[in-house]
Amino acid sequence: MIAYGFRRKPEGDVIAHIDLGLDEHRHPGIRGLNRFRPETAGPLNALAETLLRAPHPTLSPGERELIAAYVSGLNDCEFCSASHSATAAAQLPAGMPLVEQVRADLDAAPIDPKLRALLRIAAAVRRSGRDVTPELVEAARAAGATDLELHDVVLIAAAFCMYNRYVDGLAAFTPDDPRAYEMGARHLVEHGYAAG
Amino acid sequence: MIAYGFRRKPEGDVIAHIDLGLDEHRHPGIRGLNRFRPETAGPLNALAETLLRAPHPTLSPGERELIAAYVSGLNDCEFCSASHSATAAAQLPAGMPLVEQVRADLDAAPIDPKLRALLRIAAAVRRSGRDVTPELVEAARAAGATDLELHDVVLIAAAFCMYNRYVDGLAAFTPDDPRAYEMGARHLVEHGYAAG
Repeated sequence: MIAYGFRRKPEGDVIAHIDLGLDEHRHPGIRGLNRFRPETAGPLNALAETLLRAPHPTLSPGERELIAAYVSGLNDCEFCSASHSATAAAQLPAGMPLVEQVRADLDAAPIDPKLRALLRIAAAVRRSGRDVTPELVEAARAAGATDLELHDVVLIAAAFCMYNRYVDGLAAFTPDDPRAYEMGARHLVEHGYAAG
Repeated sequence: MIAYGFRRKPEGDVIAHIDLGLDEHRHPGIRGLNRFRPETAGPLNALAETLLRAPHPTLSPGERELIAAYVSGLNDCEFCSASHSATAAAQLPAGMPLVEQVRADLDAAPIDPKLRALLRIAAAVRRSGRDVTPELVEAARAAGATDLELHDVVLIAAAFCMYNRYVDGLAAFTPDDPRAYEMGARHLVEHGYAAG
């Protein structure tokens, strides 16, 4: 359980702040929220699909999911960090051990310098957009980062500051069984976010 | 200038962290970013249009823009707080004086108790989704808030935690002339976000 840092919500089993009108165990996290409000689910899923899965000249889906998992962990969002850790692990050759290393100690994790520099920018964005300094940007450029990579890492990190607050701000149901996230990851890798 | 809290960026005139390939003065803030990356602009604009302007059973566009302005001010994002303050003012009968009162002192501003309770939830979401307590939710319900209003205020506040970080994380150009924001607001009220 250490890998994900799961916690049971203290309030009980079904604890969303609003009545989603569905079985939260079957539609946990953002999935239940998406069913409650399909009008916003459309753009939210389209944004995730574009940022994390659409063809990209340099960043693989696994690397982009790793950025999402890293930011979600820093934001202490159990559902999103478990979901995106599982989805990153399913698409990275080094799997969950690498995801855990990055989340536990970015400086020591065995990743290439460019990805490390991009993750440092993601951590700054998470605190505040104003924390992205010219020095952080220059360090990423020196490691080979392109304008598109800089743009996308800022927007991925910013987007997960939204998704994390959305899920936790409505106290969406968060399963504590890792298999739930592994199943979700398999579905996402195969069908994508738009299939919700 | 106090109303908006404008600041000139110290670095000079055109200071985005990446080369947007356009005249930033003509396409300030998120508008330049949207042109740089139309693939993400689509869902980002669709989300803003749905949250802030689509027909809503109880929250007017002006009230929803006020939530966006309030969160953007708390996040210290000059471009978004000026933009959405101007757009809220253009659509609220009490105009900019009310927007300024809410941003300066929520407890004392002359708004109805339900909107005040929703704005308190927005302030909590801005800090962390986990800061939305059952007490805050119950206070909003006691003032008449519906599940849809609770859902939407959480997602509007969360979304502006994204937009604010996106704009500031890439150091997008921020005009310091209030007329630029008034013109932008007129365009938005007439044409919406999707017209970018």
